[in-house]
Amino acid sequence: MCKEGAVMLKGNMLIAHGGGPTPVINSSLLGAVREAKLHGEIETIYGARFGAEGILAGDLIDLGKFADEDLALLAKTPASALGSCRRKLTDADYPAVLECFKKFNIRYFFYNGGNDSMDTCNKIYNLSVETGYELRVIGIPKTIDNDLDVTDHCPGFGSAAKYAAVSALELAQDVSALPIHVVVMEMMGRNAGWITAASALYADLMPCEQLVYLPEVAFDKERFLAAVKEKWAKGRGLLVTISEGIHYADGSPVADSGVVDGFGHKVPGGAAQALSDMIMRETGLKSRSEKPGLLGRVSVALMSEVDQKEAEEAGACAVRSAVAGKTGYMVGFETAREPYASQTILIPLEQVANAEKKFPLEWIGDDGASIRPAFKAYCEPLIGAYDSRFISLR
Amino acid sequence: MCKEGAVMLKGNMLIAHGGGPTPVINSSLLGAVREAKLHGEIETIYGARFGAEGILAGDLIDLGKFADEDLALLAKTPASALGSCRRKLTDADYPAVLECFKKFNIRYFFYNGGNDSMDTCNKIYNLSVETGYELRVIGIPKTIDNDLDVTDHCPGFGSAAKYAAVSALELAQDVSALPIHVVVMEMMGRNAGWITAASALYADLMPCEQLVYLPEVAFDKERFLAAVKEKWAKGRGLLVTISEGIHYADGSPVADSGVVDGFGHKVPGGAAQALSDMIMRETGLKSRSEKPGLLGRVSVALMSEVDQKEAEEAGACAVRSAVAGKTGYMVGFETAREPYASQTILIPLEQVANAEKKFPLEWIGDDGASIRPAFKAYCEPLIGAYDSRFISLR
Repeated sequence: MCKEGAVMLKGNMLIAHGGGPTPVINSSLLGAVREAKLHGEIETIYGARFGAEGILAGDLIDLGKFADEDLALLAKTPASALGSCRRKLTDADYPAVLECFKKFNIRYFFYNGGNDSMDTCNKIYNLSVETGYELRVIGIPKTIDNDLDVTDHCPGFGSAAKYAAVSALELAQDVSALPIHVVVMEMMGRNAGWITAASALYADLMPCEQLVYLPEVAFDKERFLAAVKEKWAKGRGLLVTISEGIHYADGSPVADSGVVDGFGHKVPGGAAQALSDMIMRETGLKSRSEKPGLLGRVSVALMSEVDQKEAEEAGACAVRSAVAGKTGYMVGFETAREPYASQTILIPLEQVANAEKKFPLEWIGDDGASIRPAFKAYCEPLIGAYDSRFISLR
Repeated sequence: MCKEGAVMLKGNMLIAHGGGPTPVINSSLLGAVREAKLHGEIETIYGARFGAEGILAGDLIDLGKFADEDLALLAKTPASALGSCRRKLTDADYPAVLECFKKFNIRYFFYNGGNDSMDTCNKIYNLSVETGYELRVIGIPKTIDNDLDVTDHCPGFGSAAKYAAVSALELAQDVSALPIHVVVMEMMGRNAGWITAASALYADLMPCEQLVYLPEVAFDKERFLAAVKEKWAKGRGLLVTISEGIHYADGSPVADSGVVDGFGHKVPGGAAQALSDMIMRETGLKSRSEKPGLLGRVSVALMSEVDQKEAEEAGACAVRSAVAGKTGYMVGFETAREPYASQTILIPLEQVANAEKKFPLEWIGDDGASIRPAFKAYCEPLIGAYDSRFISLR
């Protein structure tokens, strides 16, 4: 149940970032700040330094002190200009959160993050209801992984998808021009295969063979090695793109980094190297691995214009909605395709908190190593303009 | 000794690629083909499919069949549009080379590659002299590693340097915004540290600490771990950028991929993962590694405009020089800085064959883990225009 009302509420605003950055999280910040400046109800605009850590420590930045032309740089600055953290708030932390809100007279709270952050955001909303502290709480979605539920897609994904799609298509030129080893590339995305699926967006334009492995399908070693040998035999070179989170049928990861993050999740990593080693050991073929890792969430050159604009609008919509009396929601997007159009919607926080949207199994080919065209229709508008024309003279 | 003369030589032309591609090797091809079309002496313009393999097999492509507007795409197509290979020609192969040249009446031969390819190119030049087969041979330089001797720099390096510099600066935003682990990024470059040094081009703009390790300095584990702890203690986050070829004082690599290429060189790879593991094991800090690898030599978005234009000019200069009677040379660049200006020169092939230009020790800081400003003055003009402005609100 979300409270709604148009009662004018005067006070200060706080915006915070949670979890890993995206190329466009700063664009949402820009959209929120610009919108807030239009509303007299919002007096001081604060940002939390390093997310939840800043809230707990009362370490806030007055964003009003920055000139508009400096703030405009947020639209092309990757990572989080406020700082973020992976600290998961526990019940013991909420009194300190409330103390910060009271101390700074925060009446508008915006948390810009993924599933874990939306859970926190929901808890802060519940806290305001339970304690009677008048506060409007809106979540602003952010994740390159695209695994937030209900919304059609999530700001951050379009840019990460463009990075994956373009990198794979460019790499395919190299792989086919000098086909001396199987190349395995690892993409981020944790337990969801959305980004890795985007690496196959231009599969039909690739001058080499491609195999794609998502965490939604259990990894089968024998089937993988047979597919590698079969594709390699075609003599065009072979690019294998995999999710960092791929695992065997029993749930054990293909590679274990041995690291756990602040939310208790295992930090993935190393799967491409593991598969490259496996290929060399088991087939005798040469292989090498690429792992752009965090580079896939910071590239300004491959930022999607569509994603950037939508991220900005998500921030603005959050502030506009709160001023209009909404609380307890996350901003989401509903879309039409052909032609593509999107509009913001409000989704109750309880519907998105901690839910994880996996890549649809019906968009994965029967071989378990390819992506069906339906995904292209979904994803291509999100990455925006891109000139995919290359020439081969061979 | 290089033969020179302006005697008009009618016949066909052959251009071939050798070794690993760069973002701009196709630009050199474009420059050579466009120039060749201006000279009536050159009848048919051939390209070798997959480099030396194509020459040995007589597998040539008539480049005249492609429309100009299609060829124009070469300027933005990464990797090699002709195909390349890592086959090192041996004495036993040269009769087959000569047979191919005679069969196709090749009188102009251009080999576009790095040190190994320039050695091959020099041998083919010597073959023409020894056998009396009238042939003009010019090498077109190509290597992202920038390790070709005599020339100020090499086409391909400017783009790889831009990729390294921009990626590191963008990654530094992420590293400082969420400083939960030491991030180690591995760059290509084999035994030369030029590309890795470029990852420190914007060190003065980085919001985090940085340590840089090149193969020109023996890697010292204790010194490294002490530096990591000292930098981490500053609380700003830490980015460590390393060359794939870093090794200990006894010459043993920090990581051994176990793979040897067609030229007999050990294929490097895995050093970032090895150092990341070392940091976690020995300091208790969290760490993760990124290895963009081949992505650093295919990015169109981070292609240097200066590099692209110079690569095209290198190809054109090679053809122009051969038509004017030159043979036995490699095209190189001599430059002025402030303001930057470059012009092509001809360097006898025997001076560059197999020579390896390392990163100058005097440009490495006393700590062995930083780059001195003199390198910035050298490198920055080569990467061309780049807007390095980011904003932090923290």
